[in-house]
Amino acid sequence: MSADPLSATFAALADPTRRAILARLALGEASVSELSAPFDISAPAVTKHLKVLERAGLISRGRQAQWRPCKLEAKALEDVSGWIDQYRQLWEQRLDRLEDYLKILQAQEKKPARKRAEKK
Amino acid sequence: MSADPLSATFAALADPTRRAILARLALGEASVSELSAPFDISAPAVTKHLKVLERAGLISRGRQAQWRPCKLEAKALEDVSGWIDQYRQLWEQRLDRLEDYLKILQAQEKKPARKRAEKK
Repeated sequence: MSADPLSATFAALADPTRRAILARLALGEASVSELSAPFDISAPAVTKHLKVLERAGLISRGRQAQWRPCKLEAKALEDVSGWIDQYRQLWEQRLDRLEDYLKILQAQEKKPARKRAEKK
Repeated sequence: MSADPLSATFAALADPTRRAILARLALGEASVSELSAPFDISAPAVTKHLKVLERAGLISRGRQAQWRPCKLEAKALEDVSGWIDQYRQLWEQRLDRLEDYLKILQAQEKKPARKRAEKK
């Protein structure tokens, strides 16, 4: 795994089970056994995923020895959102171009209609 | 690399050189030699990164044999943005809580000031 925090976050997000764990934690804190229940994987496998998420700063874990609740940490996701926002205008421009094209199509549709109206 | 498109995109983004390539392509199309110039890596290494980005749908490449310009594809980044948006309220709530706390601190500061005013 790369050393920079953003690369670690992206690498942690590149797995559907880890993203599903985050989706569950968005609803509230949960223990390892609560997290492994909906998945077809063992508690040790979930623990492995949690370690990746924790190293990436996406979750934190409570300090009680037995019940160590996992908590989603919004900061790392906010950093990803900040990174992606610099590209936002790229797809907004793409939508603008589609909109412009649609207006041209609509204008072309109106023209023959007007001609027919003039003939009456 | 995982099979699902979102995992492939996140895995492709988990590398600082690949993110720098995307930042360059956000300014416009570029060839492999133009892309390798600012980095301390060889053209074959850049080509390897481009293949990862292309498989993830983050870039496309022109069809001319020699000059195959690379182009950023906004759609894949838009999908990442859509995924992250479902968590937006989590860090917005975090900001709201900080704001509430600030208001409490400000209200506590105002109280003694009013008492001093009443004494006059």
